[in-house]
Amino acid sequence: MKLLEERIRKDGIVKPGNILKVDSFLNHQMDVKLFREMGKEWKRLFKDEGINKILTIEASGIGIACVVAEEFDVPVVFAKKTQSLNIDGDVYSSKVVSFTKKKEYDIMVSKKYLSPEDRVLIIDDFLANGCAADGLSELIQESGATLVGIGIAIEKGFQTGGKNLREKGIHLESLAIVESMDDTTGEIVFREQ
Amino acid sequence: MKLLEERIRKDGIVKPGNILKVDSFLNHQMDVKLFREMGKEWKRLFKDEGINKILTIEASGIGIACVVAEEFDVPVVFAKKTQSLNIDGDVYSSKVVSFTKKKEYDIMVSKKYLSPEDRVLIIDDFLANGCAADGLSELIQESGATLVGIGIAIEKGFQTGGKNLREKGIHLESLAIVESMDDTTGEIVFREQ
Repeated sequence: MKLLEERIRKDGIVKPGNILKVDSFLNHQMDVKLFREMGKEWKRLFKDEGINKILTIEASGIGIACVVAEEFDVPVVFAKKTQSLNIDGDVYSSKVVSFTKKKEYDIMVSKKYLSPEDRVLIIDDFLANGCAADGLSELIQESGATLVGIGIAIEKGFQTGGKNLREKGIHLESLAIVESMDDTTGEIVFREQ
Repeated sequence: MKLLEERIRKDGIVKPGNILKVDSFLNHQMDVKLFREMGKEWKRLFKDEGINKILTIEASGIGIACVVAEEFDVPVVFAKKTQSLNIDGDVYSSKVVSFTKKKEYDIMVSKKYLSPEDRVLIIDDFLANGCAADGLSELIQESGATLVGIGIAIEKGFQTGGKNLREKGIHLESLAIVESMDDTTGEIVFREQ
């Protein structure tokens, strides 16, 4: 998606350790107009899939997912990262290793909000090693729901997550795929799509 | 806001300890159509305030804030609860005590995303003792930005947060104010507004 690639080139900052900071528009400050355009693009890409639920993970996926969900006219469910007193014990859960935070955590979704009738689109801001997507996929599988596809804003194409998901036959649509980036020049190369 | 009150009556669950579970539509599964109507209502209530930024706090405020932000045509900034490698050290920070999680945590916003020119509307899902609102207000004050008002989905009117904010002269608009609730009968009484 050209609009997103241009925005990443304009406002993304490449940091040592393959970190791409896009917190001025994607995951700290959030440009909801951009999210709307991203939502329309995913709607185009997944339009005939009968999606009736969007699943994401707290925190930075939630804003994108809510705007996208309006395009599909469906509710969002977000997986929570820690047990809170406000969640029933009756949950699906799996484990995720965070690339940016370098730690393992549990994610969970109440059993009330995923069921075998659900056709689910996962939405998230980043795909790197794919652990969050794998964790969310496990929750869907546990529930008996159908994983229709995964929509990612920015895929790090030089990491293994996207390749692994595509090899499993999962319909993955990343709106921008970074092939390489250079923290000395700031150059970002995108994969042609 | 009648629509929200009716939804709370229909789908909210009163639990012992003054806990109101609304996770089927507000803060686990999220009804974005309802969020849109809430956004229109806050737009009506804050329409002449020159708001140029929405501030919320992860995680459950983000979805509401993003939909509301589209009504105002402004970006959202969400305060983060823990230090992540993806955030610069250059942040405004304050402390919050969570009512539901019964613990204290730090919140922070990058200095890049709040500045003296900003006229900020805080949006959050719940107001109880007001600690999250106080913490967000502190971030705004630190930055030199102007706190224009606070929009809350559900205020627990029997706790002190709303009263304290109103006494400080802060323009607070809670779309539903719960005066009392009974975990044996499930009855919820709303304040007339």
